Amino acid sequence: MSKPRAYRVKAYSATAADSPLAPATIDRREPTENDVKIDILYCGVCHSDLHFARNEWGFTEFPAVPGHEIVGRVVEVGAKVTKFKVGDLAGVGCMVGADLSCPHCQAGNEQFSPTQVQTYAGTEPVIGGPTFGGYSQNIVVQDHFALKLPENLDLAAVAPLLCAGVTTYAPLRHWKVGPGQKVGIVGLGGLGHMGVKFARAFGAHVVVFTTSPSKKEDALRLGAHEVILSKDPEQMKAHAGTFNFILDCVAAEHDLNAYLAMLAPDGVMTLVGAPEKPMPVLSFSLIMGRKSLAGSIIGSIAETQEMLDFCGEHGITSDIEMIRMDQINEAYERMLKSDVKYRFVIDMASLQ
Amino acid sequence: MSKPRAYRVKAYSATAADSPLAPATIDRREPTENDVKIDILYCGVCHSDLHFARNEWGFTEFPAVPGHEIVGRVVEVGAKVTKFKVGDLAGVGCMVGADLSCPHCQAGNEQFSPTQVQTYAGTEPVIGGPTFGGYSQNIVVQDHFALKLPENLDLAAVAPLLCAGVTTYAPLRHWKVGPGQKVGIVGLGGLGHMGVKFARAFGAHVVVFTTSPSKKEDALRLGAHEVILSKDPEQMKAHAGTFNFILDCVAAEHDLNAYLAMLAPDGVMTLVGAPEKPMPVLSFSLIMGRKSLAGSIIGSIAETQEMLDFCGEHGITSDIEMIRMDQINEAYERMLKSDVKYRFVIDMASLQ
Repeated sequence: MSKPRAYRVKAYSATAADSPLAPATIDRREPTENDVKIDILYCGVCHSDLHFARNEWGFTEFPAVPGHEIVGRVVEVGAKVTKFKVGDLAGVGCMVGADLSCPHCQAGNEQFSPTQVQTYAGTEPVIGGPTFGGYSQNIVVQDHFALKLPENLDLAAVAPLLCAGVTTYAPLRHWKVGPGQKVGIVGLGGLGHMGVKFARAFGAHVVVFTTSPSKKEDALRLGAHEVILSKDPEQMKAHAGTFNFILDCVAAEHDLNAYLAMLAPDGVMTLVGAPEKPMPVLSFSLIMGRKSLAGSIIGSIAETQEMLDFCGEHGITSDIEMIRMDQINEAYERMLKSDVKYRFVIDMASLQ
Repeated sequence: MSKPRAYRVKAYSATAADSPLAPATIDRREPTENDVKIDILYCGVCHSDLHFARNEWGFTEFPAVPGHEIVGRVVEVGAKVTKFKVGDLAGVGCMVGADLSCPHCQAGNEQFSPTQVQTYAGTEPVIGGPTFGGYSQNIVVQDHFALKLPENLDLAAVAPLLCAGVTTYAPLRHWKVGPGQKVGIVGLGGLGHMGVKFARAFGAHVVVFTTSPSKKEDALRLGAHEVILSKDPEQMKAHAGTFNFILDCVAAEHDLNAYLAMLAPDGVMTLVGAPEKPMPVLSFSLIMGRKSLAGSIIGSIAETQEMLDFCGEHGITSDIEMIRMDQINEAYERMLKSDVKYRFVIDMASLQ
C-alpha cells in the first residue's frame, strides 16, 4: 500500500476559543484499505461541539472542526471494506477509529478503548494533526466505526441519534429499563427528549423532572406519563423513594442528593451530562437503600447499531430544527439558552 | 395473649450527648409469642455506637444504650418460636423486628423495610420508648431477627460479624466479587479488616489502600496481596483504571474522585462508611468508563446468616481486643484515634 495522501475539503472551523466558527479548508486522509469516505448530508449540533470549539474543557487544538452526529452517503470504500458499498447511507458518531485489539474492543466496548480515535478532539492516525468533525463536506472513517442507517426515517432527524440517541439508549439498555419500572428523566433537552422516547418505547413508566413548567406539555407529547416540577418540594416528596432508574441528562450543576432521594432501594441514577464542577454527594444518599450513582458516555458500536435498528423499527427520530451552516454561531447562542426543540441539525448542502 | 409486661435489666447508658456511659437499669418487654430472649455474652463496639451515644446524628433519644454486635445464649422462647430453643447460641445485629409484610421484607431485604425496628435508635414496638442495644445483660428480639451462630468459632470474635461482618460481606457478595477480579479495600479499620478477609476468601486479588505505612504488614497478614499508600501519587497512578470493585470503608471525609480513578471500566466503588458531610463527585469520574459509586448498609437477615455460616466453614472471625464494660468510655476515645486492632468487644460478664 502506498503512503496515504491528504486531500482538501471545505469545512467550518474555529481558529481560537473566542473566535466564531467560519468557513475553512481542512486536510483529510485519502481512504486507506479499511476506510469509508462519506459525503455528509446532515450533522447534528451537540453541546459538546460548543464546549470543544470554545476550548471549555481545555484540550482543544485549533483549528477546531466540531460535529459528531453525522449522516451521509458512502462515496468511496477501501479495498478491504465489505460492510459498505458506494451509494449506501452511513452514519458516524463520536468515534472514527481504534486498533480493535485491546480487551475493551474485543469485548465490544470500543468506547473504553485507549486507542479510540475521537471524531474530533482526537489525533488523525494516518496524516497526523487533529481529527476534524462533521461540520464539513465529507469524512473518512475506519469501516468498523461507520453505522448502517435505517432507510425509512427522515435522515436529518436521524443525525442526532449518533450521539444524543446512543448516549441515552445505551444506559437505558445497560441498566435493563423496561416494563414494570418507574423511570425518571432529568432535564428535557437534546439528550433528555431522546431518553423519554426510548424509556417509553422500552415499556417503562416514564416521569420527566423539569425546572420549567412550560415544558410539561411537550414532555407528555414526547411520551412521558408524568411530569414533576423539580423546584416544587411537595411534588418531589410525593415521588420520593419510588424510582427504579433515573437518567440524569443535565449539563449544569444541580443537586444530586435530591434526585438520589427519589430512588427506590437498589435504584440507579446514571449521569450522561458532564457538569464541569464536582457535585456534593452524601454517603447517606447512597447507603440507605443500596443505591448507585453511575455515569455513562455514548455507547459501543454494537449498541449504536442496535439503537439505529430499533429506531428504524419503531419510527423514532430526534425532534430537530434545521439550520444552515452559516447559522451555527447563532445556534450556539440559542443552545446556551436551551432555545431549541430539541436538536439543531445542519443541512450540509448549505456549506459553501 | 395477655398484655406483655416489662422487666428490669442492667445496662450501660448515656443520659446525654456529653455524658459518659454509666451503669443504669432499663426496661425490656417480656418475650411475646414470637420473641427470643438472649443472655448477652459479648457485644462488639461499632463506631455507630459512639455516634449514637453522643447524638452526632441528631436523633438520639436518651437514655441511650448502644450495641448491635450481640452474641449470647437463648434463655427463653415464645410459644410460636421454632427457630431456637433454650440453650442455643444466638446473634443479634442492627435489626430486632419488622412486621415482615412489606415488599422489601417479602423479597428478603428487611434492611430496606419501613417497619424495621433498629436494635437501638428504634422505637420499642410493644412497651414503647426507645429500643436499647446490647450493652446490657440480655435482650428480647423477634425470632426472625435472631441469627444462628457457628459453634466452632471464638464467640467473642464472632460478635463484630453481626455488623462489621455483614456490612462488608453483603456488598462484596451483591456485586459478585470473586476470582479474576482486582478488589480494593479503602481503610483498614473494623470494617476494612473484615473486607480484606472476605474479599480474600472469595478468591479476589485484594489490594488495601491506606494512609498509614504502619498498617502495611498487618494488611498483608489479614490477607491482602498488595498495599497502596494512598498519599503516594506514584503508587496511585500505577494502579489507576485497574480495579473491578472497591469497598470504601472510610468514615471520615476523603477524596472519592481519586478512588473512582482507580476503577476499570464498568467498575463499582461501594461506600459502607458514612462521613457526615457530602463529598464532591465529578461527573467525568463516572461517565468515562461507565463507573458506579454505590452505597450499602448492613445486609438482609438471609445475607447475615449466610455470612455467619461462611465464617464457620472458613474459620473467619474479627480481630478483637476484649474490654470490660467499665472500659467503654476509654475504648471510645481510643476508637476515635483508630487505636484498636480491629474491634473492641465487651465481655458482658463484666457488667455489674
